[in-house]
Amino acid sequence: MKAYKANILFTPEPERFEMLEHGYVVVGDDGCVVGTFAELPEQYKDVPVTDFGDQLLMPAMNDLHVHAPQYRNLGIAMDQELLPWLNTYTFPEETKYRDLQYAERMYRRFVRDLWKLGTMRAAIFATIHPEASCLLADLLHEAGMGGMIGLVGMDRNCPETLRNTTEEVIEGTRRVMARTATMPLVSAIVTPRFVPSCTPEMLTALGQLANEYHLPVQSHLSENQSEIEWVKELEPESTCYGDAYRRYGLFGQTPTLMAHCCYTAGEEFELMRANHVFAVHCPTSNCNLGSGIAPIRRFMNAGIPVALGSDVSAGSGFSIFRAIHYTLQMSKMKWVHGGHREMFLSLSEAFWLATKSGGSFFGKVGSFEPGYAFDALVVDDSDLNFDNYSLQHRLERYIYLGDDRQLTHRFCQGKEIAQPRIKEN
Amino acid sequence: MKAYKANILFTPEPERFEMLEHGYVVVGDDGCVVGTFAELPEQYKDVPVTDFGDQLLMPAMNDLHVHAPQYRNLGIAMDQELLPWLNTYTFPEETKYRDLQYAERMYRRFVRDLWKLGTMRAAIFATIHPEASCLLADLLHEAGMGGMIGLVGMDRNCPETLRNTTEEVIEGTRRVMARTATMPLVSAIVTPRFVPSCTPEMLTALGQLANEYHLPVQSHLSENQSEIEWVKELEPESTCYGDAYRRYGLFGQTPTLMAHCCYTAGEEFELMRANHVFAVHCPTSNCNLGSGIAPIRRFMNAGIPVALGSDVSAGSGFSIFRAIHYTLQMSKMKWVHGGHREMFLSLSEAFWLATKSGGSFFGKVGSFEPGYAFDALVVDDSDLNFDNYSLQHRLERYIYLGDDRQLTHRFCQGKEIAQPRIKEN
Repeated sequence: MKAYKANILFTPEPERFEMLEHGYVVVGDDGCVVGTFAELPEQYKDVPVTDFGDQLLMPAMNDLHVHAPQYRNLGIAMDQELLPWLNTYTFPEETKYRDLQYAERMYRRFVRDLWKLGTMRAAIFATIHPEASCLLADLLHEAGMGGMIGLVGMDRNCPETLRNTTEEVIEGTRRVMARTATMPLVSAIVTPRFVPSCTPEMLTALGQLANEYHLPVQSHLSENQSEIEWVKELEPESTCYGDAYRRYGLFGQTPTLMAHCCYTAGEEFELMRANHVFAVHCPTSNCNLGSGIAPIRRFMNAGIPVALGSDVSAGSGFSIFRAIHYTLQMSKMKWVHGGHREMFLSLSEAFWLATKSGGSFFGKVGSFEPGYAFDALVVDDSDLNFDNYSLQHRLERYIYLGDDRQLTHRFCQGKEIAQPRIKEN
Repeated sequence: MKAYKANILFTPEPERFEMLEHGYVVVGDDGCVVGTFAELPEQYKDVPVTDFGDQLLMPAMNDLHVHAPQYRNLGIAMDQELLPWLNTYTFPEETKYRDLQYAERMYRRFVRDLWKLGTMRAAIFATIHPEASCLLADLLHEAGMGGMIGLVGMDRNCPETLRNTTEEVIEGTRRVMARTATMPLVSAIVTPRFVPSCTPEMLTALGQLANEYHLPVQSHLSENQSEIEWVKELEPESTCYGDAYRRYGLFGQTPTLMAHCCYTAGEEFELMRANHVFAVHCPTSNCNLGSGIAPIRRFMNAGIPVALGSDVSAGSGFSIFRAIHYTLQMSKMKWVHGGHREMFLSLSEAFWLATKSGGSFFGKVGSFEPGYAFDALVVDDSDLNFDNYSLQHRLERYIYLGDDRQLTHRFCQGKEIAQPRIKEN
């Protein structure tokens, strides 16, 4: 058992921060929170205490949508919208991951950069390549971080050099399952790229696999108008884009992440709500590709679960703190464009999305309530806190103005996580 | 005369980058560019060369709209739209600048942070306080940086504790003029806060002052719908918000900066075009306050000059590099919301806005063409350039992923600028 003393902030509910100035969090040997306290209770007086002084202690970030093999394209190649962007930049880059050396070089940096920006768990798209995907699982596990690795299925509307058959995607996913079977924090996730990439045969097989093993599912949904039109043509019997997944058992029959949802409305909205499908909000990506603004307030009001994603490399950075402030900003754009009808998000709401809401996809993750995994970040904001700001303002300034430099300690499931090693060029 | 060798990038025109891999820029003793060269010409063989190796060398950033006295509020206080935001957060903070010690403490940090994020010249709103405003001019000048200091006029719809009379704003502006008279790079700018803050009497006097001394002018325009409605009520004889400035000689009769222009259209648009009034685009601010998205492509197509502003503290950071990527992102939002009619901006266009276009307000600033001031940044992007990116991609990745850490040298008018000193608390 360990105790940590710091200025503690977390969001048990979206409406407010729980804040303990110079408070304590006690962590059990299982890496889970025993409790948080203003004063250390008598029963824990012999528990070793690490005192972080005036630093902030908060739940770590969760990234619920990120493409590891797009690592090299981060910060470039954003001059096209979604469909041409895939063909011009993304598919050619992902093709390179058949080379395991290239994959290792990039994937090590990928894991290092998640760590660097304070993300301790991520739901990750890999590629069609089983070896590289298993390697990615190894790297995440060795780092002591958590998440889900998606071997990607794609067998139509993609280059010959980047596609797999139904048999191959099933076999590849099984290999990731086997590789992660003994990893406590890393597991497999069924990953059809998106409807235009996957034949009905592939979608059927992936849905069966997900339901047979009760595996989670991740894909893309309603990011962009031309994509939505295309899905209508490809799946004319579906009542909406979401239904095109649902019909194959890939829409909430098991825990499901759908990235973007910029244009989700009507029946698709209702399907998400009824099936408890997560909308993964990727605001920097939606800006960079000129996709649109997802109706997050409407999702939250309806009880559709929402998480945040970096969506590297359509998204322009790994930081989920940056995703938090883009979430706030885009909600304000939505508010002004919609005639001030749907209230923009508050800081605590956006922070809750990044921590407890997104973390819930991984289990009891993203809060410091008893029983929650101790995934945490320690933030030395002394360079920003030059004028005695309140705790909440200190957090807010960190979110807008801070970066990796202020992150002094990172924990995942109770263990302090050191910087993952990369291979120099 | 000096020469610098580096990977040189600049935008003589918005459509393209001029790039010289391991090229040379020669700078005269007047601090202006003599020329850029792929190879050092024979006539300059005795000019001392500083070799920056593989680093990037580019024009420095220009911030054409920033509120120095809102420094402490950076990164907080963004939960309200413009008009209540002013009353709740901004006016109370600016009131404190009657205390010269407080002003010095904040203004030193302000100048340091401009420097830190690569801004070498700025058009700055100060407060109503002449002493503090003169101090700000001193600090900018002592740092070797450039720009314009605006003593702010405000005599209605503001607290008793933060207002000045017409006599006081004229006297205060004259004091800044006198203080900056011998400063080569720092000067005064006539600054009515905005129409709702200034009686016709004050606007008249400020317009007369500007025109008498041919002083530039800065203010706010069409940021937000309730502001525009309010101006209609206050100035019913004006044909539009811009006309409410024009009638007093404050709209292009001398060089004029108008921040925001989110809703500029129709006659106001035509007035800006005809009078060559600058639209200062402040995209992070427009997001944070839920104001709207300025029609930058439309301005550019019509020949309305455009510059970028951080608009600290409605804007959430000092970095004009960040303003560049927000400009790109917001132009894509405008594009998708407008049915794909107005093309989003390219990287070179947004970079040109930040450098040559914005710089033109200060003179020949923002390019490395002959005769231009050598305002420059040297960027060590080796941590980002791990995979032999092209020069343009290196710049792009720096804009999206970089920060102050990569800035190794900063020049203003040919002089290298050291970090400005602050006073510790």
